Amino acid sequence: MPELRKDPIIGRWVIIATDRAKRPNDFKPEQSEMTEVTPCPFCAGNEKLTPPEIRAIRKDGTEANKPGWDIRVVPSIAPVLRIEGDLHKHPHGIYDTMNGVGAHEVIIETPEHVGNMCLLKSAQIAKTWKTYRERLIDLEKDRRFKYVLVFKNHKPAAGSTTIKHCRSQLIALPACPKSVKGELEGAKKYFDYKDRCVYCDIISQELDDKKRLILEIDGFVAIAPFAARFPFETWILPKEHSSDFSKIKDNEIKALSKILKKVTSRMNKLLSDPPFNYMLHTAPYRRPKAGYWSTIEQDYHWHIEIIPRLTRVAGFEWGTGFYINPTPPEEAAKFLREV
Amino acid sequence: MPELRKDPIIGRWVIIATDRAKRPNDFKPEQSEMTEVTPCPFCAGNEKLTPPEIRAIRKDGTEANKPGWDIRVVPSIAPVLRIEGDLHKHPHGIYDTMNGVGAHEVIIETPEHVGNMCLLKSAQIAKTWKTYRERLIDLEKDRRFKYVLVFKNHKPAAGSTTIKHCRSQLIALPACPKSVKGELEGAKKYFDYKDRCVYCDIISQELDDKKRLILEIDGFVAIAPFAARFPFETWILPKEHSSDFSKIKDNEIKALSKILKKVTSRMNKLLSDPPFNYMLHTAPYRRPKAGYWSTIEQDYHWHIEIIPRLTRVAGFEWGTGFYINPTPPEEAAKFLREV
Repeated sequence: MPELRKDPIIGRWVIIATDRAKRPNDFKPEQSEMTEVTPCPFCAGNEKLTPPEIRAIRKDGTEANKPGWDIRVVPSIAPVLRIEGDLHKHPHGIYDTMNGVGAHEVIIETPEHVGNMCLLKSAQIAKTWKTYRERLIDLEKDRRFKYVLVFKNHKPAAGSTTIKHCRSQLIALPACPKSVKGELEGAKKYFDYKDRCVYCDIISQELDDKKRLILEIDGFVAIAPFAARFPFETWILPKEHSSDFSKIKDNEIKALSKILKKVTSRMNKLLSDPPFNYMLHTAPYRRPKAGYWSTIEQDYHWHIEIIPRLTRVAGFEWGTGFYINPTPPEEAAKFLREV
Repeated sequence: MPELRKDPIIGRWVIIATDRAKRPNDFKPEQSEMTEVTPCPFCAGNEKLTPPEIRAIRKDGTEANKPGWDIRVVPSIAPVLRIEGDLHKHPHGIYDTMNGVGAHEVIIETPEHVGNMCLLKSAQIAKTWKTYRERLIDLEKDRRFKYVLVFKNHKPAAGSTTIKHCRSQLIALPACPKSVKGELEGAKKYFDYKDRCVYCDIISQELDDKKRLILEIDGFVAIAPFAARFPFETWILPKEHSSDFSKIKDNEIKALSKILKKVTSRMNKLLSDPPFNYMLHTAPYRRPKAGYWSTIEQDYHWHIEIIPRLTRVAGFEWGTGFYINPTPPEEAAKFLREV
């Protein structure tokens, strides 16, 4: 009998197929022919092929937009939002619009032509996450922005281009996204009722249960969420309560990078370099002192969601918001523990 | 400058790229090699290849599960939910589960091996929609069900298998989906404030404006929605207010089938037989007399959403619920009017 499971934060139902559960080898992730763009605009030496850098971690004495960097942040050459201009909110009859103001940046994670983050040293991964922290703190100063999403699209089936070079993106938005609001509202309802953070309770139950626990390293856990939407979906959370990723300390980034490297290496091995996305979920900027905004620090808990793209979203998912997951998270976690 | 537009019903933001808008020829929908399954289980003569039929429209005197039918409804051979059993709601520590009870049926839309619904006569399409109406009315008698989603996945990139034969599906669910609740709540808020149905107001503004109007036939309109998530996304709505598709009359189904045939034929021509999904959005079953449930009949308005699958959903969309649409709906509507 398939099982319907409810996400304890946002109340989304998923259907977990328990009868004929799919194992790692049952998935044939879509393989796009990767006709590589040459020369690669993200390799050291090709800095002139990108817009001028916004920020870089580079060796002392090296010049901006020249080799000598470890991490480089550049504006997207195809930005979905524009950095200039004001919001100019305005109606159109019954409709509402505003100008597409925002920031869209690309974080180049290595000067070398490496295609998969799990092949980078964890010290290099740490530099990427330090850069995210710095960009989040810097962009908060721009009062037009309400939220910044940091994310990665790995391979074309996960929305990337055919350029292999390891990178991630961030988009700063002038409105707090609906899906973030859903998490904030759900977490607040839970806190109001239980006087505890729902994510802290999830971590505590998963550490007791062990069935969905993938890894635990120096204050971070990787779990297969109980109501996972996708096969091998994995969440990484800090055990210590914190709503805001940008407050993370250097030693915590070190531990986070270790667990990220392990989890992505295991996915890579188990699922043969699958397309995947990761998204950083953290507290929004500029929190008014009313409604669910006023208590975000106690209610919310930052975390990372990693979703391998092995299944397709079809009419049923679009029409209902239900998801069908053919691999129970308990089995996914077991595979990811044992690989 | 890109434009941020807010959906007036559920408050979802989309980013409409206005700078370098994509035209029909700019999309290269993913082509999967269609290795056809033979013999086709959905063709007349092969009835034994499916589970026994639940219902059929067939010529007088023909036998069940034998040729002689125009439309045939069969249980899915890979049901995502099971028809037997009770719900058995139960907790798992902080989590909630219930048994995966539901119905999953396949509606075979023609006895002939036709791969695209736009090639069927509109009288044949009408038979499919009469069958949906009948199944919706029949499944309501099962008191375990709260909602039925009727949908179509056309081609593998839209979640179909490699069998080409024209068909659609329905899934009856024991819980009202989150995305349906979102529409009901949004429509209620609007009605409480304006004393009018938000969908009626949309239709009225679109008929005045004409910019996003694609077609108008005998009481139905096809529009490109103002905050379309996807290029060439199209909604079909009855002009006369009605919350519940199952109340539709035969002559209205005739008009609906005409507009569906025209819209899908135009998409087929303009976008070279694109993968697409359609979903019927209608009022849920078993509406309590409290909250937003009590006023659904006045607040809500049934409609069909058609989404060609030309773009990929990536980390940004998963992380935020924002969508990026590279074709302004005004241009999509113009192409679909003029093709």
